[in-house]
Amino acid sequence: MADDQVRQAPVAMRTGWPDTYFALIFTTQRTVSDENMYQITADRMITLAQQQAGFLGVESVRGDDGIGITVSYWRSQDAIHDWRTNSEHVVAEQMGRKEFYEWYHVRVAKIVGHQTFDASLDSDAGDNLEE
Amino acid sequence: MADDQVRQAPVAMRTGWPDTYFALIFTTQRTVSDENMYQITADRMITLAQQQAGFLGVESVRGDDGIGITVSYWRSQDAIHDWRTNSEHVVAEQMGRKEFYEWYHVRVAKIVGHQTFDASLDSDAGDNLEE
Repeated sequence: MADDQVRQAPVAMRTGWPDTYFALIFTTQRTVSDENMYQITADRMITLAQQQAGFLGVESVRGDDGIGITVSYWRSQDAIHDWRTNSEHVVAEQMGRKEFYEWYHVRVAKIVGHQTFDASLDSDAGDNLEE
Repeated sequence: MADDQVRQAPVAMRTGWPDTYFALIFTTQRTVSDENMYQITADRMITLAQQQAGFLGVESVRGDDGIGITVSYWRSQDAIHDWRTNSEHVVAEQMGRKEFYEWYHVRVAKIVGHQTFDASLDSDAGDNLEE
């Protein structure tokens, strides 16, 4: 499933990412509606997002209690705007409201600092956070 | 567990939140190290964060594959700075590097737009995202 692919290919080192980028933070509570239909739609949205201009990466987790957080990363607010108004995405959003989610939050955020730790390197892989 | 409390008390309506606020996005991959010690530490960090000045709320999910995303929300970058340099937090971070995490990312982000949907209200509870 695409969801597993996402998990197995986390945004690790951010190689080649711009210094300034944006996040779309999508927090959701699943209903008890059809899991199969949900998963097909969720997988399709990941695939579609990856094809959008300005897409950088995505991290997605859902817990056993049905709460999920998906954070996707983008080069600009315009890229996020284009993704959020993509016609197929808009249809999926309507399905989400009708079927899949009890509630959700969408937040757009500008990344102003990051730090990466990788135990296999035993060091900070990148850090521009001021302490 | 505090982690469950977090899940059962998601950041729903943002009542009383400021128009401008910040997120600390913490993405992690757990090692196979001791779950009990990890959970005690993670719970303590949630409790401690909630006591910090400028704390607004937190959303936290971990999947079966050990990948977790915790997003906490804060009134200012200074509040995030104070949290990240809290002495007990710093000790927990060192334990995290040594024991709990294969890798992690910490990102600080300024929220520039949000939208909330609640099926029980069958409407947008709040929306300042320009489309």
